[in-house]
Amino acid sequence: MNPVSDPVSATTGAITGSTKVYRELPDGGRVPLRRVNLTNGEHLDLYDTSGPYTDPTAVIDLSAGLPGRPGVVADRGTQLQRARAGEVTAEMAFIAEREGVPAELVRAEVAAGRAVIPANHNHPESEPMIIGKAFGVKVNANIGNSAVTSSIAEEVEKMVWATRWGADTIMDLSTGSDIHATREWILRNSPVPVGTVPLYQALEKVNGDPTALTWETYRDTVIEQCEQGVDYMTVHAGVLLRYIPLTVNRVTGIVSRGGSIMAAWMLARHTESFLYTHFADLCEILARYDVTFSLGDGLRPGSIADANDEAQFAELRTLGELTKIAKGHGVQVMIEGPGHVPMQKIVENVRLEEELCEEAPFYTLGPLTTDIAPAYDHITSAIGAAIIAQAGTAMLCYVTPKEHLGLPDRKDVKDGVIAYRIAAHAADLAKGHPRAQQRDDALSKARFEFRWYDQFALSLDPDTAREFHDKTLPAAPAKTAHFCSMCGPKFCSMRISHDVRDAYEKGMAAKSQEFADHGNRIYLPLST
Amino acid sequence: MNPVSDPVSATTGAITGSTKVYRELPDGGRVPLRRVNLTNGEHLDLYDTSGPYTDPTAVIDLSAGLPGRPGVVADRGTQLQRARAGEVTAEMAFIAEREGVPAELVRAEVAAGRAVIPANHNHPESEPMIIGKAFGVKVNANIGNSAVTSSIAEEVEKMVWATRWGADTIMDLSTGSDIHATREWILRNSPVPVGTVPLYQALEKVNGDPTALTWETYRDTVIEQCEQGVDYMTVHAGVLLRYIPLTVNRVTGIVSRGGSIMAAWMLARHTESFLYTHFADLCEILARYDVTFSLGDGLRPGSIADANDEAQFAELRTLGELTKIAKGHGVQVMIEGPGHVPMQKIVENVRLEEELCEEAPFYTLGPLTTDIAPAYDHITSAIGAAIIAQAGTAMLCYVTPKEHLGLPDRKDVKDGVIAYRIAAHAADLAKGHPRAQQRDDALSKARFEFRWYDQFALSLDPDTAREFHDKTLPAAPAKTAHFCSMCGPKFCSMRISHDVRDAYEKGMAAKSQEFADHGNRIYLPLST
Repeated sequence: MNPVSDPVSATTGAITGSTKVYRELPDGGRVPLRRVNLTNGEHLDLYDTSGPYTDPTAVIDLSAGLPGRPGVVADRGTQLQRARAGEVTAEMAFIAEREGVPAELVRAEVAAGRAVIPANHNHPESEPMIIGKAFGVKVNANIGNSAVTSSIAEEVEKMVWATRWGADTIMDLSTGSDIHATREWILRNSPVPVGTVPLYQALEKVNGDPTALTWETYRDTVIEQCEQGVDYMTVHAGVLLRYIPLTVNRVTGIVSRGGSIMAAWMLARHTESFLYTHFADLCEILARYDVTFSLGDGLRPGSIADANDEAQFAELRTLGELTKIAKGHGVQVMIEGPGHVPMQKIVENVRLEEELCEEAPFYTLGPLTTDIAPAYDHITSAIGAAIIAQAGTAMLCYVTPKEHLGLPDRKDVKDGVIAYRIAAHAADLAKGHPRAQQRDDALSKARFEFRWYDQFALSLDPDTAREFHDKTLPAAPAKTAHFCSMCGPKFCSMRISHDVRDAYEKGMAAKSQEFADHGNRIYLPLST
Repeated sequence: MNPVSDPVSATTGAITGSTKVYRELPDGGRVPLRRVNLTNGEHLDLYDTSGPYTDPTAVIDLSAGLPGRPGVVADRGTQLQRARAGEVTAEMAFIAEREGVPAELVRAEVAAGRAVIPANHNHPESEPMIIGKAFGVKVNANIGNSAVTSSIAEEVEKMVWATRWGADTIMDLSTGSDIHATREWILRNSPVPVGTVPLYQALEKVNGDPTALTWETYRDTVIEQCEQGVDYMTVHAGVLLRYIPLTVNRVTGIVSRGGSIMAAWMLARHTESFLYTHFADLCEILARYDVTFSLGDGLRPGSIADANDEAQFAELRTLGELTKIAKGHGVQVMIEGPGHVPMQKIVENVRLEEELCEEAPFYTLGPLTTDIAPAYDHITSAIGAAIIAQAGTAMLCYVTPKEHLGLPDRKDVKDGVIAYRIAAHAADLAKGHPRAQQRDDALSKARFEFRWYDQFALSLDPDTAREFHDKTLPAAPAKTAHFCSMCGPKFCSMRISHDVRDAYEKGMAAKSQEFADHGNRIYLPLST
């Protein structure tokens, strides 16, 4: 890799209270798991996105990149094509083990286009994963520099940091300097699929002037990124010239960068978008590498006032048309969704997407359920994300506290990922995902039994949970105490609840004894 | 007030970007508003919970307490009784102005028991407010010390701090030392209604031994708190002896402090709860002061596994029975609700509560939509809170990041209040509350027009929004710049969107001209 001026390093080491384990596959692959080791001798294995960085036995050399997984096949078409042909690929077998589902389900969902496996043949460092509503809800974390701030070193660490806390994919949205080199560092070191918006780099190549873009510049950028190993690409091909007037009276116009760039290009030239007119050409390129389309919602609403309007749904209909074309070329497709949407209008988005886009996986940004909380939009949007995921969204694109205000730093990345893991897990529970509630039950059992260390270890963020507990009760004995500082010892409902249970059980035993004493003939009420 | 060892002080001063204004009422009362002053000369008036503390002209003397509002009537029964008699009370007129609704709606909802006005005759410092699903969704913030930590000074500041950020009521849940004195300081200085759980103080009086509690100790404590001015009281009168066995096989037993205390009392004595057997006596006491019942959910689920179980719903049926009794005595009633509930089981709680409790206002704790995120339960529960409020919950009890881990500090209180203001506002939007979207629209318009100061001022937390923006672009010119560090100048969709709008409008003008040039006869497409 190109050397960089700042030293590049990344957070490594096991997640507190967990160890890294692997389940071996017949083909030599191994599926990583986060094993939470409990103080009562039990353990719980969790889905693990963090890659070798949380394996203390792994040798990490960022300048060399992660080792590639064995047996990547580059000359047999896309996962979609192979699924249709009835083949269970190595990636599908890996995913089946990872999700705890039959491999045939994985194949069938991919074949139907209801799930995608973003796995560019040129990104062997990535551990296979699936995006589809039959599987666990996934979370994407956007990283990347802008012209104003950040460096390659920071972005590599953000990637590792995001996957440590549970990001299933990463999008590198860099728009500043060194776009190619930044992406190279991220791709070679990323254990998860990486997405991009090629239009950003193309625009950099024409010095930021949208009207100077050409199909050829764009096409060459796409090929460059396919060669490099990008797993999925956002393409705003649904923004058509005739939809622009629909945005003119909006409160916040066009808020998608890609959408606004293409609108500017079309208006300047009074011609249809090259992304739309060359869509079949794009399909041919992406099919060669098995890069997945993420059809962008360039006209997504940027405010509550603009939600579910004609511009948004007109574009969605076009995305449905493009979905058919892409699938006709054997290219995998997912569909991006809003944005800012009030709660009562969220489910309609899923219903329409499924109807118009043949149930292609929906991949939504939030949505934010109100506009009034900049600095807290990880929360405004986690509400919408949970609701839309329950309704069927397959992957949630996180929003960080810095949304609308600035480029997220490392702390923002973690806050965004945790908020979205919460939303995704809440949706998994609501959908009755077979493994989801195991973790809640294990944590609640630990909580009720005052196994504080286990409660921390089972949580989404063991370090912060423990830190908060330590703020008022830092001493080691408090880690087994039958109370915390919230209620103090006398008012601990859980402690009293144990007494109640004991008293009740003793009462039952006494009742049985009384019954026996009376020759098992007469029932005497307990409260004599 | 009793002097305290630590100096007591509170945060004062206007909220950044806003001024305090009042709307005068015919009876001499004045309704406070937060006026957001925009840089384009416009302003937006917002509902304001913060009391005189945000009015720079107010003289604050914490040891003397806030001035009482004029004309509090102490001898004419409860708001419920007066509403039934057709009277629009001074409190109702105040609330009508505050909520922007007809006074008759306020009276009718109170008369029907679908809304409550918690306003003890002995708490004239409080500004009248209403809790009911026909009005804006309200937020309660729990404060109070425990045996392990905190002081009176800290709790008074937490109260002021919570109302500054939007808490509509406060519950003082102190269980440590100086319970009476702490509550006195809070009551005399609180601009919002104050709730308590009298059982906590009663238990302190018997040195923390639940089995030593008596009706007489409890009754005297209730009278003491009524005299002091407490506006609403949580009473766990629905926890009956026969329901205890229903909790024995739960994952987390009984997690309500009050519920577990009463269960321990009943099991030790094998008799029915004195809260239940003396409920009519309680009604007579509360009616004298117009203290509102908050019928506690002592058997609420404390984990996803226990949600919507027989114990929970058995208690809810009893709360329905008690609601009728309380209303028969002219006492106002609201009903407390869960707890931990997965998303798909939330709406059922509202439906059942409305059916069983004659649509008495529902007042819910969250609910938390998953158990796996200690340190982030303000988020797990904001998701549930937004959903349950959309379904009809009238007031949301906040959950802070410290839930399950320790006593919240001042920062936690703010984080909890902001998360819950988000949930409440998202629900107001979803319910089509007439004034809710004005704020979203004003903020989004400011955002689209790059009026950064206005965007901050209109947000729930102007200080943090600005601080986040300043982290990457601290210079003053950035406050009018047509971009931020998130995308940088070239990729700002909003900037490009303005260009698109201008280009489109120029295009339209050109088209009109062409049309005119051709004698208004032929339509020429723009893209010739």
